[in-house]
Amino acid sequence: MGIVLWHVTMSLDGFIAGPGDDMDWIFEYAGPSAVVDEVIRTTGAIVAGRHTYDVGRRDAGKASGAPYGGAWSGPIFVLTHRPQVGEEDPAITFVSGDIEGVVANAMAAADGKNVEVFGADVAHQALERGLVDEILVHIAPLLLGDGVRLFGRPGAARINLEPIAVTRAEKVTDLRYRVVR
Amino acid sequence: MGIVLWHVTMSLDGFIAGPGDDMDWIFEYAGPSAVVDEVIRTTGAIVAGRHTYDVGRRDAGKASGAPYGGAWSGPIFVLTHRPQVGEEDPAITFVSGDIEGVVANAMAAADGKNVEVFGADVAHQALERGLVDEILVHIAPLLLGDGVRLFGRPGAARINLEPIAVTRAEKVTDLRYRVVR
Repeated sequence: MGIVLWHVTMSLDGFIAGPGDDMDWIFEYAGPSAVVDEVIRTTGAIVAGRHTYDVGRRDAGKASGAPYGGAWSGPIFVLTHRPQVGEEDPAITFVSGDIEGVVANAMAAADGKNVEVFGADVAHQALERGLVDEILVHIAPLLLGDGVRLFGRPGAARINLEPIAVTRAEKVTDLRYRVVR
Repeated sequence: MGIVLWHVTMSLDGFIAGPGDDMDWIFEYAGPSAVVDEVIRTTGAIVAGRHTYDVGRRDAGKASGAPYGGAWSGPIFVLTHRPQVGEEDPAITFVSGDIEGVVANAMAAADGKNVEVFGADVAHQALERGLVDEILVHIAPLLLGDGVRLFGRPGAARINLEPIAVTRAEKVTDLRYRVVR
């Protein structure tokens, strides 16, 4: 069975999107990366939030419109109470309910590969329920100063991590951690 | 002449202090570090915010009470309009006015070594005025989820960075960047 991985790119100051959900800066730093290639190869299913889905739709046709710019394909579960009418991509399923059940279903669909969680809200829910095994963070070399934060809410419980690997691809630093439960 | 360095430890999710300005978690990860030793050796003066000073006073006697747990000594300029009455440490000078002048004075006092900026407020002021040459961030392996953020305010301008070095000491990852002006 695979693991549950939160895979995310952030600015050094901890933003995963700029103001207005801007994702374009991420692609300024995109380049050949053995770490990303490995993620694409080992991911069997994705669980995404509705917001991530909406930003992807908005950016359709841009590199940020599809997971890994289209380099990955597989089942995508979008957690929402408002399924998008007219979505024609058969890979996309709208789901609702408990994050635990959603991740379990995604794990079954991943067929032995990993499940990736996409988007701050879904990742936080999964983390707080102890469902995330590893976090892979690409740190892009900039301070955004404003936008969507990686993590955080008042009163959040501290989560300990165990470093697995530090690598660097061009100007981006890749940090991989195991979540300590 | 030295450089102006912002030296800071943060959680992976971008907090430099926990709720209630808790700094104790930082010392859970403290250990031998060639990178920190080099900073101690090359720093000639520190510019700190009043808040950082207050937290240091609160934590007096603890490892977080003095810069580098007492392993460094030299002039410390505390930027404030409210000088602390009864401060007896001759190394501490309370200053006010423009951050540019304060950093210039600290640079003169550093006598060829580097000036370090300490504390989110002072670091942000210095960064936004283009006074910071390099940023050294130690990433501790945890998600704090709540507390004081490394950086960020609505409408902040993006700041580009150039990676200089990535190193690792025990569980902490050290990222050093040059600020692109």
